[in-house]
Amino acid sequence: LLPSVQSPTHFPNNESIGVAGVSAPKQLPFEFKALESCIESACTCLEYETQRLEEETYPALGELTSQISTLNLERVRQIKTRLVALSGRVHKVAYQIENLLDDDNDMAEMYLTQKLDAQLSDQTSVKEAYNEAFDEDIDKSERSYSDTYKSYDHKPDVEELEMLLEAYFAQINGILQKLSTLSEYVGNTKDYINIMLDDKQNQLLQASIILNTMNFIVNLGILVVGVFGMNIHIDLYQGQPSQFWATTSGTVLGCVLLFLVSIWWGKRYLLPQ
Amino acid sequence: LLPSVQSPTHFPNNESIGVAGVSAPKQLPFEFKALESCIESACTCLEYETQRLEEETYPALGELTSQISTLNLERVRQIKTRLVALSGRVHKVAYQIENLLDDDNDMAEMYLTQKLDAQLSDQTSVKEAYNEAFDEDIDKSERSYSDTYKSYDHKPDVEELEMLLEAYFAQINGILQKLSTLSEYVGNTKDYINIMLDDKQNQLLQASIILNTMNFIVNLGILVVGVFGMNIHIDLYQGQPSQFWATTSGTVLGCVLLFLVSIWWGKRYLLPQ
Amino acid sequence: LLPSVQSPTHFPNNESIGVAGVSAPKQLPFEFKALESCIESACTCLEYETQRLEEETYPALGELTSQISTLNLERVRQIKTRLVALSGRVHKVAYQIENLLDDDNDMAEMYLTQKLDAQLSDQTSVKEAYNEAFDEDIDKSERSYSDTYKSYDHKPDVEELEMLLEAYFAQINGILQKLSTLSEYVGNTKDYINIMLDDKQNQLLQASIILNTMNFIVNLGILVVGVFGMNIHIDLYQGQPSQFWATTSGTVLGCVLLFLVSIWWGKRYLLPQ
Amino acid sequence: LLPSVQSPTHFPNNESIGVAGVSAPKQLPFEFKALESCIESACTCLEYETQRLEEETYPALGELTSQISTLNLERVRQIKTRLVALSGRVHKVAYQIENLLDDDNDMAEMYLTQKLDAQLSDQTSVKEAYNEAFDEDIDKSERSYSDTYKSYDHKPDVEELEMLLEAYFAQINGILQKLSTLSEYVGNTKDYINIMLDDKQNQLLQASIILNTMNFIVNLGILVVGVFGMNIHIDLYQGQPSQFWATTSGTVLGCVLLFLVSIWWGKRYLLPQ
Amino acid sequence: LLPSVQSPTHFPNNESIGVAGVSAPKQLPFEFKALESCIESACTCLEYETQRLEEETYPALGELTSQISTLNLERVRQIKTRLVALSGRVHKVAYQIENLLDDDNDMAEMYLTQKLDAQLSDQTSVKEAYNEAFDEDIDKSERSYSDTYKSYDHKPDVEELEMLLEAYFAQINGILQKLSTLSEYVGNTKDYINIMLDDKQNQLLQASIILNTMNFIVNLGILVVGVFGMNIHIDLYQGQPSQFWATTSGTVLGCVLLFLVSIWWGKRYLLPQ
Repeated sequence: LLPSVQSPTHFPNNESIGVAGVSAPKQLPFEFKALESCIESACTCLEYETQRLEEETYPALGELTSQISTLNLERVRQIKTRLVALSGRVHKVAYQIENLLDDDNDMAEMYLTQKLDAQLSDQTSVKEAYNEAFDEDIDKSERSYSDTYKSYDHKPDVEELEMLLEAYFAQINGILQKLSTLSEYVGNTKDYINIMLDDKQNQLLQASIILNTMNFIVNLGILVVGVFGMNIHIDLYQGQPSQFWATTSGTVLGCVLLFLVSIWWGKRYLLPQ
Repeated sequence: LLPSVQSPTHFPNNESIGVAGVSAPKQLPFEFKALESCIESACTCLEYETQRLEEETYPALGELTSQISTLNLERVRQIKTRLVALSGRVHKVAYQIENLLDDDNDMAEMYLTQKLDAQLSDQTSVKEAYNEAFDEDIDKSERSYSDTYKSYDHKPDVEELEMLLEAYFAQINGILQKLSTLSEYVGNTKDYINIMLDDKQNQLLQASIILNTMNFIVNLGILVVGVFGMNIHIDLYQGQPSQFWATTSGTVLGCVLLFLVSIWWGKRYLLPQ
Repeated sequence: LLPSVQSPTHFPNNESIGVAGVSAPKQLPFEFKALESCIESACTCLEYETQRLEEETYPALGELTSQISTLNLERVRQIKTRLVALSGRVHKVAYQIENLLDDDNDMAEMYLTQKLDAQLSDQTSVKEAYNEAFDEDIDKSERSYSDTYKSYDHKPDVEELEMLLEAYFAQINGILQKLSTLSEYVGNTKDYINIMLDDKQNQLLQASIILNTMNFIVNLGILVVGVFGMNIHIDLYQGQPSQFWATTSGTVLGCVLLFLVSIWWGKRYLLPQ
Repeated sequence: LLPSVQSPTHFPNNESIGVAGVSAPKQLPFEFKALESCIESACTCLEYETQRLEEETYPALGELTSQISTLNLERVRQIKTRLVALSGRVHKVAYQIENLLDDDNDMAEMYLTQKLDAQLSDQTSVKEAYNEAFDEDIDKSERSYSDTYKSYDHKPDVEELEMLLEAYFAQINGILQKLSTLSEYVGNTKDYINIMLDDKQNQLLQASIILNTMNFIVNLGILVVGVFGMNIHIDLYQGQPSQFWATTSGTVLGCVLLFLVSIWWGKRYLLPQ
Repeated sequence: LLPSVQSPTHFPNNESIGVAGVSAPKQLPFEFKALESCIESACTCLEYETQRLEEETYPALGELTSQISTLNLERVRQIKTRLVALSGRVHKVAYQIENLLDDDNDMAEMYLTQKLDAQLSDQTSVKEAYNEAFDEDIDKSERSYSDTYKSYDHKPDVEELEMLLEAYFAQINGILQKLSTLSEYVGNTKDYINIMLDDKQNQLLQASIILNTMNFIVNLGILVVGVFGMNIHIDLYQGQPSQFWATTSGTVLGCVLLFLVSIWWGKRYLLPQ
């Protein structure tokens, strides 16, 4: 990624080409090599952790969707906690890089090599520089740009550092987006599980109602045979065995019929809802 | 859209008209034609995907609303995931265009043709330019505007590029709003389904309570006939068959009456809530 | 509203009064009359739709609160969808006006009449203006302010346009706040309905438990009389009718007592929770 | 609060002390006295309403937590609606003050007394001022600061107004934070009630299951005594009364044993979850 | 932390080194020592409270997860309320420091010692300074920087104060992130508990359905033995005791068989869901 950064840094050198004759692509000074390796290692580390988290999240959510258990829930919860912590860390890095990118002066102060050079040649050129700087504006922040030497020399370097930082800022933002997609996916799955659980609950309640209906009908049957179990004497009690079977089968058939009617009625009553 | 962009770019040319005599509407340079076709293709692609997603979302949500099944839920969940991913991509494009629009210098550096021309005429005009630039401010960022030629020539072009980018920025924002409306609609439907499920659950519980009441009353009836099924002898047991029927019908009538009373009581007790 | 806008635009004319002798309150140029009527019509339209939505929302939510039915839910859901769409449109208008207000140059470019006048007198005054502009800064954006004529003449007009736009911006913000209050109210009602449904569910479960308890007690009674219905002979079976009534009433009284005890116990056990 | 505001406004007067010899603490001009009393009355009113809302919210939420009834819910819902409306009003005031604080020009235009004075002395000093303003920058907004008199005289006053507004801005922000804490507390309580209701629901379901278990066991008992109530003759029916009591107590003991076993099993099965 | 802040403040002194010969590391003036001790005490206090809150939150949430009781819920709710209040306080401090950091002028006005020195030397150097300031820009805010002495002298000090404030700003931001992680964790746990409760509810309903099924089957058995308890005479009633046992065991076996079938059917019907 970074090697391609150097070439676009050339054209703002136009002026210095005319002035100082520097035309070859500059090597990154040591302080930026150090900075780059620091940020690169941080990015690699965060990217690696994001990838590992991603690899864990999808199967964990898949398992949780297919079976809700305390174990799976606890696992997803720990993944969510890690996701929040990792997002916090990535945000911090992105915030620091963005802050640095927003403040040109802070970036200029990171050019340690150039500042050393500038300081050495400062005392000899300060008078001369003042004459050149006669009509120059001191920029809004006015901090460290009061001599022309600096302002003519610094700019391409800030460009260089800016591009270096922007490249890593884009990478960090990519990681952030991955994490936020992951977080959205977890929240999404949570909603999915909630609706699924609520729906299953209603199905269980429906099954419970069907059972209750069956229970009720059997109880009705018990009531009927209980009536014929009363010891109050009627002529039927001395009747034919066929009367016993008629009574029994009548009761059973009545129960079955009632059950079918209630199923039909329940379907017509519950389905339009 | 874009052809109408060129005309308003003329009036900031007022000065250069007096200076350089350029008055005909400029053709877009090749780098902007390339840029425009890139952004246009990206916009078309994102718009197409948004439209396809929209076409899938509404029927899928409609089906989910009319019948909650694992299949429909899974489908809506996948649509939500795609919606989040697509929003992320559109946001990225919008963010990049906005960043470019916010930084005039970055836009100025995209004028490749002009920069080449400027560089060629640079070395001859640099002395002369300095005299003109005598009282000029070097702007806040101070990067590439140290010679008058550039600052007098660049501005209309940045206007041109700005309008080109703003047109596509508006289009991207339109896509973003469509996606956010879609996302709100999905969330809306989720709330709707949740309330619907909770309400259905209460209806099922109410049905369950009615069944329980009926069960209870039948059990009361069984208790009564069970009492007369006890083998402890009383005079009734040697009574008339009419007494059997009186007892039976009394029990049944009592049950029906109790059921009606409990329905009336339940309605009065549950309806004000 | 707008007539009162003209008077405060005078005092920044102080300088130009001294220079150009313009002192009478200016008429709004034709381009601003056109712009004003456009924005006014948009505002009126959006305000009208907001008001109609408000008038529909409150009764619809009231009905939904008093009775949750598929019809009422569907109605509230459609109102929510319309609310989101309308908010999106109002946001778009507010965003455009805010963008315009933030960019003084874009506002300056809307002074079509003045730009025409300026262009006509431009070629004659350009030399002269340069001398005056000698020590002027070219502002940060540096676009169209390189001659004094413009910068001395434009400013009061931008003020004029700014006040016109600010007046409508305030109106649009008022509409936005109405819509956001409406949206909060809908969300509020959703939470209210959710808690109400959950609470009703618990009441139904409580009623269900009371019924179950009653059922259980009656079943106990059935068990008792079932015991005396066993055909295993004991002396009691040849006893007095009074023994039958003693047994029966004992069973019934036991049931009632048990019921009262369980109600008391349930209240003591469930109420502190 | 405000009296302490005047003293810190002195030190930026350093320069004008040297130039104009003004050293005594200035009285606030009449326009700021008017402005101050307006904002103070608005703040007092909003603070009073916030306090009254706070005083109502905590007991209402307390009652709702201890007993969920339609009345309490409706009361909390109305409090929430008022909270949203009040927050909207406070936000509006805070937004207006912040806008004013962000725009130094708008603040400068509020110095009516000074503007009148400046206008009077304007025509005499305009030539002279121009010479002094020779090397002055016209600031970024470039609106009304083209003469030195103003820029040297206005600044301390803007400071004065800024401190006045900042004091009330802090107060308004304090009110906003109170309201947002209140809103968080309401949302917090809502979550608390939801979990409480869900937990109570589970406890009710558990009680319901225990009752169902008891019911089941009693039904088993009924089945057993029902078996001995069958009229199919066995020798036991002519047995000793002790056999009756043995059967009965065996059945009852079996039921109790089964109940204890199921309770123990249920606890072991349900507690680890 | 702070001792390391002093060294980086040196290099912007480059210019003043050349001009004024000040090269030794400056002591912090008394006003910054006071400010530092104020902010440090505030940070320490907030950090301490955050830590105590953290130490309470994790065990409280752990207990709530393992057992949902009114006591634990109330405890977590109070922790959440304290969390919101503490976040508000930390936000306020962070906001104030950020505001100060954003406004260079406000920071410059905090250099009480230097302002006193500047005021003393002001009247002698004001003429001279004006000549030097001839081509200087007055920066965007233009408030208190009209003499060169100040602008050349102040800058390093603002740098000093900026670094002091930035160090504490970073610390405050660290506290804010801890609090927001804590808040996310609480919300996370809330979601976890909600899913857990919903899942347990479904398990209870499933247990309830199994019990209902068992109840239904026992009732069927009661119906069968009730049939044989009817007093309608059949030949079986005078049969062998073996017939009694056949009937009984047939009924019981039928019940057990039915139960096994329903369990198998329920598993096949409920598990794919």
